[in-house]
This record gives sequence, C-alpha cells and structure tokens, in this order.
Amino acid sequence: MSEILKEQFLKIIRISDEEFDYILGHFSYKKFRKHQFLVQDGQDVMFDYFLLSGCVKSYYSDENGKIHILLFAVKDWWITDYEGYYNQKKAIVNIDCIEDTEVLCLSNDNREKLCREFHQIEHFFRKKTNRRNVALQNRILSLLSSNAKERYEKFIREYPSLTQKLPKHILASYLGVTRETLSRLYSPK
Amino acid sequence: MSEILKEQFLKIIRISDEEFDYILGHFSYKKFRKHQFLVQDGQDVMFDYFLLSGCVKSYYSDENGKIHILLFAVKDWWITDYEGYYNQKKAIVNIDCIEDTEVLCLSNDNREKLCREFHQIEHFFRKKTNRRNVALQNRILSLLSSNAKERYEKFIREYPSLTQKLPKHILASYLGVTRETLSRLYSPK
Repeated sequence: MSEILKEQFLKIIRISDEEFDYILGHFSYKKFRKHQFLVQDGQDVMFDYFLLSGCVKSYYSDENGKIHILLFAVKDWWITDYEGYYNQKKAIVNIDCIEDTEVLCLSNDNREKLCREFHQIEHFFRKKTNRRNVALQNRILSLLSSNAKERYEKFIREYPSLTQKLPKHILASYLGVTRETLSRLYSPK
Repeated sequence: MSEILKEQFLKIIRISDEEFDYILGHFSYKKFRKHQFLVQDGQDVMFDYFLLSGCVKSYYSDENGKIHILLFAVKDWWITDYEGYYNQKKAIVNIDCIEDTEVLCLSNDNREKLCREFHQIEHFFRKKTNRRNVALQNRILSLLSSNAKERYEKFIREYPSLTQKLPKHILASYLGVTRETLSRLYSPK
C-alpha cells in the first residue's frame, strides 16, 4: 500500500526505489477504526498522517462543546494539527475517523531529518505545504462567504469524491448549514 | 533596508554576504501609498511581498460587496494571494495598504529558481510556509470560535504590535464584531 505514497512523491520529485525504501523506513504504519482518534485536543501531536485508505475529519470543539469542522482528509492526503506538530505544542483540534482508516505516520524529527538529507524531499514537502496553504486559504474564504449555495458548489467542484463519501450531517456541519438546507442544495432540480 | 530580509534568512539558515546579494538580485523593490493595492481580485498575482515597512490587509469582497478581512501583514511578514501566486490563477482576494508600505517583490519563477539553486533557500521557504500554515489554521479557529472576547484576547496575545497599529474599525471587522463591542473589549476594566 506504500505505493500510494511513492506515487505521490513521483508526481513531484524523482527518487529511486532504494531511496524510497530508505525514506519509507522513517514512517510507521497504523490502522484506526471508525470513531478512533488520530489527534486529540490537549495531547501531544506526534505525527503528520498520510492516509492510505479511509476518511477522517479535523474539528474544533468550542467552550460550549459545539463542534466546528475544519477539514477532511481521504486517501493520499496528509493531515494533522500543524501548530502542535511543527511547534511541539498540545493539539487544539481533534482528528477522528469517519470510517476505518489506514495511515503512514511521520514524526516531525524524521521529517526534518529527511529534508536535511535530501534536497528533493525538502522540495516535496515545501510543495505539499504550499498546497495546504491554498486549501486553508480556500477554507477561510468558504467560512467568510455568506452564500450557502456557493459554498456547496465550490466544495463539490473541488472535492467531488468527498461529496459522495461523507455522511450528509457531517457535510452540512462543514458547510455551516442545516441538513434540510443541504438536502435542498443537494437534490438536482 | 534589505537588512530586514537578511536578518530573517539568518534566523533560519546560514548564508554568506555574497549569497545574500545574489539572492537579493531576484527581488524588486516597490513603494506603495496608503490605499494602493498590492493584489487586486480578478488580476494576475505577480509576486509574493516581503514588507520592509508599513501595514497591509488582505480581504475578500463578497457578492454583496461586503468586505471580509483575512489577514494583515506588517514589517518582515510575507503576504500575497497564495492560490493565485502558486498556481498562476487570478487573485480572489485584495491586498491594500493601511499605511504607506515598502516591499520586496519575489516572482514565483524566481522563488523556484532560488529553491533549485540553494537547498538552504528551499529549507527557508518550507519553514516560512509551515508558519503560514499555522497562522491560517489559527485564523480558521478564530473564525469558528463564537466568543468575541476570546478572539480578541488571542489576537492581542499573538499580534501585540498590530493591535496598536490598526485602525479600530479594521480590527473590529477582522474580529467580526461591531466597533462598540470592540471598544467594550478594548477598554481596560
């Protein structure tokens, strides 16, 4: 299954089979069941997670216990609490599994080690981080946009596979609409 | 004034004076007056901007013409519309000057060239992008948090210099509160 990671590397950089095996040795494999947590708020953030299968959501639980969904991740996406991960701080967000999920875990120490050893790997992670920047900027714009229909259309345009995969109440929560509003947007005219 | 950029490089990587001069040759200097635009929605995003002085805001103008502030930047911060910049797309956000502002401009081609030529520069930009990720994640959390007092306190904790510098109506807009609410939060008990 680590082929999925290799494919992602090869889309951005050139690495040999031997180099990939060496790099892969810095990751660990884990399997989580639906509802289990990759990251929990208030705890250390040990890893950045590359999804081999499954689907997870990251969310923030406010002082009233209300849940706000930040982002999702599916196969071949990376996800963690990046402030906690980069800065060795406790997590502010939670990441839990919407379905059974398999991941490759990379510690920040191993990430830095690989970036030091291979200019190409530094390039790879810079490019991935650039893309995450764009995704986060888009998430901010979606939160600021007052128009639910626009938010929904942008989401299905950008993440067609996710739209099919996600339970409707979770998608509604992400879009900041009720299930009824989502059903209205969702049903083709 | 390019010393400000050099200092930022030296906080993260080692470079010689000669290397810095070579790198600096890939930047251009520009001066903007208050209310002028660095980036305008619908137009090409030519540069990432490193601020030598001044203060700018990035904002999104929705379909009703309502303005939503995403982020600010002051001296030694970087700012642009990153989706437009990285992906050669038209800008979605605007960036304008809250006061007279001097910048060093870096095109995406020159950024990629420098990253290819110097592993250290690739490292520098990966680290800066990591930090922007954290800032964007925090901005999302501030938008999701329903508590204006908490948003305000987080902001003054993270950006003490900005709190003094910003016109109050702009800070209120960023925090998503009225000027009256901000005054209440702002005045010490």
